[in-house]
Amino acid sequence: MAKLRAVLIGATGLAGQQFISALKDHPHIELTGLAASPRSAGKSYVEALRAANGMTAWFVPEALPESIAKMKVVSGEEIQARDYDIAFSAVESDVAKDLEPRLARDIPVFSAASAFRYEADVPLVIPPVNAAHSDLIRAQQKQRGWKGFIVPIPNCTTTGLAITLAPLAERFGVRSVLMTSMQAMSGAGRSPGVIGLDILDNVIPYIPKEEEKVQVETKKILGSLAHGVITPHDIQVSCTCTRVAVLEGHTESVFVSLAEKASVKDVVAAMREWRGAEVARGLPSAPPQWIEVLDEPFRPQPRLDRDTHAGMATTVGRVREDNVLPNGFKYVLVSHNTKMGAAKGAILVAELMHAQGLLR
Amino acid sequence: MAKLRAVLIGATGLAGQQFISALKDHPHIELTGLAASPRSAGKSYVEALRAANGMTAWFVPEALPESIAKMKVVSGEEIQARDYDIAFSAVESDVAKDLEPRLARDIPVFSAASAFRYEADVPLVIPPVNAAHSDLIRAQQKQRGWKGFIVPIPNCTTTGLAITLAPLAERFGVRSVLMTSMQAMSGAGRSPGVIGLDILDNVIPYIPKEEEKVQVETKKILGSLAHGVITPHDIQVSCTCTRVAVLEGHTESVFVSLAEKASVKDVVAAMREWRGAEVARGLPSAPPQWIEVLDEPFRPQPRLDRDTHAGMATTVGRVREDNVLPNGFKYVLVSHNTKMGAAKGAILVAELMHAQGLLR
Amino acid sequence: MAKLRAVLIGATGLAGQQFISALKDHPHIELTGLAASPRSAGKSYVEALRAANGMTAWFVPEALPESIAKMKVVSGEEIQARDYDIAFSAVESDVAKDLEPRLARDIPVFSAASAFRYEADVPLVIPPVNAAHSDLIRAQQKQRGWKGFIVPIPNCTTTGLAITLAPLAERFGVRSVLMTSMQAMSGAGRSPGVIGLDILDNVIPYIPKEEEKVQVETKKILGSLAHGVITPHDIQVSCTCTRVAVLEGHTESVFVSLAEKASVKDVVAAMREWRGAEVARGLPSAPPQWIEVLDEPFRPQPRLDRDTHAGMATTVGRVREDNVLPNGFKYVLVSHNTKMGAAKGAILVAELMHAQGLLR
Amino acid sequence: MAKLRAVLIGATGLAGQQFISALKDHPHIELTGLAASPRSAGKSYVEALRAANGMTAWFVPEALPESIAKMKVVSGEEIQARDYDIAFSAVESDVAKDLEPRLARDIPVFSAASAFRYEADVPLVIPPVNAAHSDLIRAQQKQRGWKGFIVPIPNCTTTGLAITLAPLAERFGVRSVLMTSMQAMSGAGRSPGVIGLDILDNVIPYIPKEEEKVQVETKKILGSLAHGVITPHDIQVSCTCTRVAVLEGHTESVFVSLAEKASVKDVVAAMREWRGAEVARGLPSAPPQWIEVLDEPFRPQPRLDRDTHAGMATTVGRVREDNVLPNGFKYVLVSHNTKMGAAKGAILVAELMHAQGLLR
Repeated sequence: MAKLRAVLIGATGLAGQQFISALKDHPHIELTGLAASPRSAGKSYVEALRAANGMTAWFVPEALPESIAKMKVVSGEEIQARDYDIAFSAVESDVAKDLEPRLARDIPVFSAASAFRYEADVPLVIPPVNAAHSDLIRAQQKQRGWKGFIVPIPNCTTTGLAITLAPLAERFGVRSVLMTSMQAMSGAGRSPGVIGLDILDNVIPYIPKEEEKVQVETKKILGSLAHGVITPHDIQVSCTCTRVAVLEGHTESVFVSLAEKASVKDVVAAMREWRGAEVARGLPSAPPQWIEVLDEPFRPQPRLDRDTHAGMATTVGRVREDNVLPNGFKYVLVSHNTKMGAAKGAILVAELMHAQGLLR
Repeated sequence: MAKLRAVLIGATGLAGQQFISALKDHPHIELTGLAASPRSAGKSYVEALRAANGMTAWFVPEALPESIAKMKVVSGEEIQARDYDIAFSAVESDVAKDLEPRLARDIPVFSAASAFRYEADVPLVIPPVNAAHSDLIRAQQKQRGWKGFIVPIPNCTTTGLAITLAPLAERFGVRSVLMTSMQAMSGAGRSPGVIGLDILDNVIPYIPKEEEKVQVETKKILGSLAHGVITPHDIQVSCTCTRVAVLEGHTESVFVSLAEKASVKDVVAAMREWRGAEVARGLPSAPPQWIEVLDEPFRPQPRLDRDTHAGMATTVGRVREDNVLPNGFKYVLVSHNTKMGAAKGAILVAELMHAQGLLR
Repeated sequence: MAKLRAVLIGATGLAGQQFISALKDHPHIELTGLAASPRSAGKSYVEALRAANGMTAWFVPEALPESIAKMKVVSGEEIQARDYDIAFSAVESDVAKDLEPRLARDIPVFSAASAFRYEADVPLVIPPVNAAHSDLIRAQQKQRGWKGFIVPIPNCTTTGLAITLAPLAERFGVRSVLMTSMQAMSGAGRSPGVIGLDILDNVIPYIPKEEEKVQVETKKILGSLAHGVITPHDIQVSCTCTRVAVLEGHTESVFVSLAEKASVKDVVAAMREWRGAEVARGLPSAPPQWIEVLDEPFRPQPRLDRDTHAGMATTVGRVREDNVLPNGFKYVLVSHNTKMGAAKGAILVAELMHAQGLLR
Repeated sequence: MAKLRAVLIGATGLAGQQFISALKDHPHIELTGLAASPRSAGKSYVEALRAANGMTAWFVPEALPESIAKMKVVSGEEIQARDYDIAFSAVESDVAKDLEPRLARDIPVFSAASAFRYEADVPLVIPPVNAAHSDLIRAQQKQRGWKGFIVPIPNCTTTGLAITLAPLAERFGVRSVLMTSMQAMSGAGRSPGVIGLDILDNVIPYIPKEEEKVQVETKKILGSLAHGVITPHDIQVSCTCTRVAVLEGHTESVFVSLAEKASVKDVVAAMREWRGAEVARGLPSAPPQWIEVLDEPFRPQPRLDRDTHAGMATTVGRVREDNVLPNGFKYVLVSHNTKMGAAKGAILVAELMHAQGLLR
């Protein structure tokens, strides 16, 4: 079967680079188009990366693939949607607002931007958690008169939380969750991102808009789809999001209240035994295990655990009873914010919808 | 009035050095004795500090006072309690278990060690919060047949939490609190303390025994003393304690459930207007304000705020409603773990009990 | 005597803030004017600082003085030079190019910008090292037809190097120097400065233009002024400048070749006994000792030593013979790049020229 | 051909773990024995790792191989040398002094310890640089009456320096080198290694004994072997070794004086074209290129470049002329201190001597 031809918008930024790196040698998807700002248009990709000081601004650790380096960059305006089967979007939210719908008229758009996450007809998909939400695109296409559609991925801080809540919701029911995040700097990108002068020997206790995103998205992802409408889960979510001097990998301290009685052993077993949606297992980017529960009390740690299963697993540790919340438990999780929480997470959604027969 | 003559045990360690630095030019207390391990006994203090490699192991930023440098160090065994009015203890818990009671037979001991914190007849005093608990020493002296007594300070992670809960408990009542700490490395000392290889680009999600300490101590400190018995406050406390790459200053993300309805404005006002125990105001080491509430959303930050009022104030920010807990609120606090949370905090207790007429 | 009335250009940036902080309670100078970009003009200083997100962008640890907070900011265009006795400049080099000469027509300008450092008629003054170079302003005024003048301070990396070379040049003569710097992040400012993602767990081995600046400036500062012309010192200077994850304080590893034989003891004595130019001693911002030589082999360290004498001293350690260069010695120095190396260094030059009778 | 059976002494420490990780799936060597302190003897390896707190102290990122986890640990005393073909040593120098000679009576010992580096009959081998020095073991065996021998690897700071000097020495001759290192924390190990409190926001300008090691070892490695005697190279070496907040990868700022005139282009070409000793090419652990010269001025950086060719290449950048030294050049290098500079470097030496027919 021919590979899906994909165009990447926002190709030169950090998030775009992560898409390029993650799509290298992908079995079903081939990157055949690169788009960026008009300033980059007409240049080869490697030239577009070259900043004023002569330095090639390629930031991911894996080498820039040769074939991509030579590929010509077009501006968003110039993209001919009919030349591609799908699009990946790594642009900022304000650009996404205009560009993603234009592409979605013709082709599916898998987006890391937040612009459409909160629209009623837009699903927010984490494959093992809510693969069935994909169906919402029917309503979206109908309502908007599009041949394609837009499916964004959640905020990177939501992802690990929602994944760990999913097995608990399925087995015991979940009533509420209070979460404090210690987030990596890569989540803030590079323009300008987190300044070294601000974060060294420090914690920054606020990330604008982050807490609201996590609160709304978690309810939507765990919600149920019926008759073309997602009813958010009635779990109550409250969080405080902070930034720490970590390169990659968000750490979250979670306090959760279950609907039913359970033991620590039950909670650990629920996470360990969780296989997620059948259709999501075995996707090319899926990890062998969605959640890895670690027994050692000093784990998970972002530096040691972020890359578990190529950054696609959520690691959990320190599962204990909590004596404050009804049927309360507490645990710590680590999730890779720029792999499962960004580019690779969006690719996983494309793989899912491909498996679901929703592409082409 | 002559100054109180104080002996310091554990004088050469990091905590001991902080006592020395904090007692420099103290208006009521004079350090007239220094004790350390037998290995240091007989040497001048500066010689005792000199490690095998010829380096003087003086770690606090302020200069080592000349007069202290020359003072002769004795071993704990050799201390003649009758030569002193009070003792400060900066030893490890296992040493404290033997040495503190021996001194307490004759003189009051103010201790940063945890050895006696959980004894029923031992008060755990934070001067603005529970100055009245000082009275418990009567029971302690009677029971143990001591002329002196032992008063430890709480764990450094408890201190900021208890201080911020105090005005809420007084004004609204507090039902429960869920807290996640992001603690500084200095809390772990230097032997070996936190290893650079472990903490750089990382978070360590576990500090052995810390959570239990905070949970028990908070209830005791906020409890009430009657008839020689402290009844712990019935607040439920649950926490997760983590270590981050910060030098000094513990950051805590707090979710609290009040007994009565309140607004964010009420909560902020309660903290800002709180003066604490009358007798604790104006003590030499007391800050002009026990709690500083900051309006900027990016504060408090440990590097920027730990030294507020010479490290003796707790700074608070991000006060918001929480939608999960009944009458729930959430906030972030920063407290200086090696100033208010250690040596200077113990000195403040000595000042309090001096003002209360319980010394000499 | 009335204080000198000073206007500060570039008042809102990080460097400008450091000038404000350093001029608080200055005995001879009063900040009576603040200028910034047109965007800030017309606002009070505190309003001008308030960024889009509602946060007051005041970055120095000391509190913003009340009187400054209320002061109205003007644009550079609007400054009436005749309302001031002197100007301090904290603007970027490209702005400095236009604005500084405009002010210098009427008043002396003390600048942290590099725009005029390499002009033949512009002295580059470090008060203890080359106070006599102040005289060059006569030539500058004559040539340019100005009533005022421009005196920039050197690059922050040059400062510590030139100060430590000065006593060696005076006592033994210096032939050449090879230096590797490990520079703090604050030297790069905040727009965007050094990104946390780039510097954590890393060293960046290149700082554009830095090495050329150090090489040229060191020769000029150590040079001699005669007949209105500075002849650069014939010392050969070669360096590699790197950036490390340090907040403040540049560390430099120096290998120097002396003209005459000397011992380690001689070199240490030369630095310790050096008093610098007579006229520079006792200036309000001058430290009691320009160079502090530390005996402990693990010093100087930027975090422990940068604030020596309020950030105005250069600390030196590890003085050893070098077996490669003729009469070679090696040592490590730490110099505070945003105190002696920036705002406070420029204020020191103003104090010097005031003492030399060159102002008003 | 059967694999060489290897015993590892010092198996439980950080360096030992790196040997285990590096020997996993090795084509020619199989780890069949593990030795550690008597405290660990008799336990399985995984039990021996388990520290008092119940945590398995396995520090390298790769998983502990199953087969090693179950292997029984013996004490150094109990090793039966005749059961093995070779030994790897990851013990501290004082243990090495006794244990390595005992093993060397029967089998070759490849050691990361410094105990025997400076003995006249002990070669210090970096395979591409001085493979011919292996021959010195004949003299060693004869003199000491051993069937086996000891070959230590150099200090990790020497390795990158010697490798980059080798092609320059071969093509142009080298007269002298002045080097300043910025070394990673992993070089100090974990007992206690570098304390987080000391290194965060800091540089430590001294590493005891390091400079002397680099100075002596570089001359020995570049020296020539004739008639069973190594004559050290007459290059003069002077260095200052510092520690920075980097996890892995030593950065070195080098100033070198060549014997002959050359251009920057020549120097770069010499490094790029260098293939090293014929016999060392294609060894299982050898990188495809010993030195990678990077053109971008911001490279090499330890975090980005330490893992080049699996940590076995030395990366070089910023090659420029130096105007101070005769035929002077300067450059920056990064070398992985715990891969090429430690365990994997020792394994490479074993591979070399295997290829040279000196084993079995």
